[in-house]
Amino acid sequence: MNLLNDTIVAIGKLDNAVMAKVQTRLDNLTKPQGSLGRLEELAKHIAGITGKESPTLKHKVIFTLAADHGITEEGVSAYPKEVTPQMVYNFLRGGAGINVLAKQVGARVVIVDMGVDGKLSGNGFKDCKINPGTSNFTKGPAMSRADAIKSIETGIKLVEEEISNGLDIIGTGDMGIGNTTASSAITAVFTDCRVEDVTGYGTGINESTWTKKVESIKKGVALNKPDSADPIDVLAKMGGYEIGGIAGVILGAARHRIPVVIDGFISGAGALIATRLAPQVKDFIIASHCSQERGHKYALAHMGLKPLLDLNLRLGEGTGAALAMSLCESAVLILNEMSTFGEASVSEKKKEE
Amino acid sequence: MNLLNDTIVAIGKLDNAVMAKVQTRLDNLTKPQGSLGRLEELAKHIAGITGKESPTLKHKVIFTLAADHGITEEGVSAYPKEVTPQMVYNFLRGGAGINVLAKQVGARVVIVDMGVDGKLSGNGFKDCKINPGTSNFTKGPAMSRADAIKSIETGIKLVEEEISNGLDIIGTGDMGIGNTTASSAITAVFTDCRVEDVTGYGTGINESTWTKKVESIKKGVALNKPDSADPIDVLAKMGGYEIGGIAGVILGAARHRIPVVIDGFISGAGALIATRLAPQVKDFIIASHCSQERGHKYALAHMGLKPLLDLNLRLGEGTGAALAMSLCESAVLILNEMSTFGEASVSEKKKEE
Repeated sequence: MNLLNDTIVAIGKLDNAVMAKVQTRLDNLTKPQGSLGRLEELAKHIAGITGKESPTLKHKVIFTLAADHGITEEGVSAYPKEVTPQMVYNFLRGGAGINVLAKQVGARVVIVDMGVDGKLSGNGFKDCKINPGTSNFTKGPAMSRADAIKSIETGIKLVEEEISNGLDIIGTGDMGIGNTTASSAITAVFTDCRVEDVTGYGTGINESTWTKKVESIKKGVALNKPDSADPIDVLAKMGGYEIGGIAGVILGAARHRIPVVIDGFISGAGALIATRLAPQVKDFIIASHCSQERGHKYALAHMGLKPLLDLNLRLGEGTGAALAMSLCESAVLILNEMSTFGEASVSEKKKEE
Repeated sequence: MNLLNDTIVAIGKLDNAVMAKVQTRLDNLTKPQGSLGRLEELAKHIAGITGKESPTLKHKVIFTLAADHGITEEGVSAYPKEVTPQMVYNFLRGGAGINVLAKQVGARVVIVDMGVDGKLSGNGFKDCKINPGTSNFTKGPAMSRADAIKSIETGIKLVEEEISNGLDIIGTGDMGIGNTTASSAITAVFTDCRVEDVTGYGTGINESTWTKKVESIKKGVALNKPDSADPIDVLAKMGGYEIGGIAGVILGAARHRIPVVIDGFISGAGALIATRLAPQVKDFIIASHCSQERGHKYALAHMGLKPLLDLNLRLGEGTGAALAMSLCESAVLILNEMSTFGEASVSEKKKEE
C-alpha cells in the first residue's frame, strides 16, 4: 500500500493566495458583488484546487466504475445482476444516460471493469477486474483487506494514467447491481445513522425487498463488525470494488490538484472512505447533486459538502457529475471571460448613506 | 390591444397525448423508471409544450430587456441609473454575465431597449423604447395604461419577429437599475405578502437604503392603489417597461408553443402579470432558479412554479435562464438519444414478491 500512503501524504491544501486574487477579480467584474452566488464560490474553489488564477476545464473525464456485489444473492435489488455487464456494453455503445450527458458537456467517459461478474468481451473499457464480484457480506467480508487496498490504488492509477491524455476536471460514476446496499452499509457505519434512515429504494424496489435490504445490512454489520476508525476495514467488509475505486479516484484527483465532481449516493460512499483516509481531501471535492436515495443527504452533511443540484436523480453512472460539470465550466467562464467595471466603463457602486 | 387579446385567446393547453407517448418512451430507456427525476419531468413538459415527441432545442434565444425606472429618484438603488445604458453597451460588446453564459449554452442574446433613459448609440440591439424611463411611482403612475399595453405587445412582437430566425426555446432576462423595486411592488400587490417580505437588497443596498425602498413601495401602492384584479393596472402603476415586455415574451412564447425559461425576480414579476392575464400560460413556463432576492420564492409559490436551480443568484440579465436552458437540453437529449432496454439488450426489472 505504498501508492496509497504516498498519495495521502502528498495531498496539499487549497491555494489561499490564488483564491484571494480570484476574489478580487470576481468583485471587479461587471455585476453586483456576489450576485452570481454559488458560481462565484465555485470559480474561487476551482482556482484554489488547481492553484491557477484563470483555470480552464478543457479536458473533462468521467470515470464510470463497474462491479458486482455478492449481496445480490439476498434478493436486495429490483434487477438481476446480469444488468451490470449488460449496462457496461450499453456504455460502450453510447446508449446510456452517462454517454448522453457526458457528450453534452464535452467529457470523455472512461469505463472501468473493477469487478464485474463474468468476462467482458470487446474493447473500449479498462480491464482492472479485481475479482468477479464481491462476496455476500451476510456470510463474511465482501473482500479481503488486500483487495480493498488494491481497489483504492486502482482508482489512484486510473487518474494518473489519464493525466497524459489531458485532465482538467474529473467526475466519478458507478454501475453495479446491489451497490446501493453496500453504500447504505458504509454510510450507516460512518455516519452512525440508523440503517433504515440511510437505506433507500435503489433501482425501485418494493417495501418487502426494502425490508430484506435493511435486514441484510444489519446482519452484515453485526457479523463483520466493520471498524469505523479503519476505512479500509469498512470497505473490505461491506464492499465494493467500484466504491474502493471511486475512493481512489478522489484521492488521486486531490493529490494532483484536479477538481473532482462526485456523483450521487455510491460516489458519496466512496468519498466517505476517501475523506476518512485523508480528511484534507474534502477541500478538493465538488458535490454535484443530492440524490433521491435517502442516505445521500446524511453522507454529504457528514462530510460538510453542499451539493450544487437537487433534481431527484438516482441513476448513478456519473450522470449528476456530468450535469454539475457544466456549472463548473460556467463558473470558470465567468471568471475568465467577463469584463471588469474598468474595461467596460461601467460606473461602480455608489457610496450609500 | 388587439394583439394582446388575440394572443391570450390563442394560448392552448399542453398536449397530453404526446406527453403520454413520451412517458412510455422514458419508462423504456435503459435506466430505472423515474431515476433521472426532474430531467424526465422536464423532457415530458417540453414535449407537452411543443407537441413534439422528439423535441429539439437547436435555436435558443435569451431576450434581455432593458429599461429605466423613475423610482430611482428616491435613492432606492446602490448603483446610479447611468449603469442601465452602460450595461447595455457591455452586453453589445459581449462582456457581461449573460453573454458568457448564453455563449456557453449556444443561445443568441437579443438585447432590447424597452425604455432606457437616454439615446443608445450603435447597433446590435432592438430599439423598442416606449419612453426614456418610467415616472417615479411615489408621485403618480409609473406609466400610462396605453404604454403598459404597448410594453406587453412589444414583448409578444419580439417573439414573433424572432421565429423566422429559428426559435426552439426562449429565456427571459432584464437590465434596469431600480427594477427590483418595481418587481417587489408588483409581487406584493399580487401575492398579498407584506412589502417587507418581498423587498430584498437588490444590487447590494444597505439597511438604510432598504428602509427607503420599502417606504417608497408602500407610498407608491397607497397613492396609486393598483387593482390586483387588473394586471395591466398593476403594471402601469408600478412599472416597468422591461417587466411588461417580459410578460409579453412569456405570452408570445406560450401562444406559439415555445418553452419559455424565466430568469429570476424581475422575470418572476413579468410572469405574475402574464399569468394573471392568462392563467393557462403557466403550463408553458419553466422556472430556472430561485433567486436570492427575497420576494422571488413567494412569486414562484404563488404561480405554483418549482425552480430547477437554487444557486443564490441575483444578477438577472437572463443568467439563471441560460444555466437552466442547459438542463432543458439535457432533458431532451436523454429523451432522444438514450437506448431503450430492447435496443440495448438489457434485462428489465424483475417481478418482486
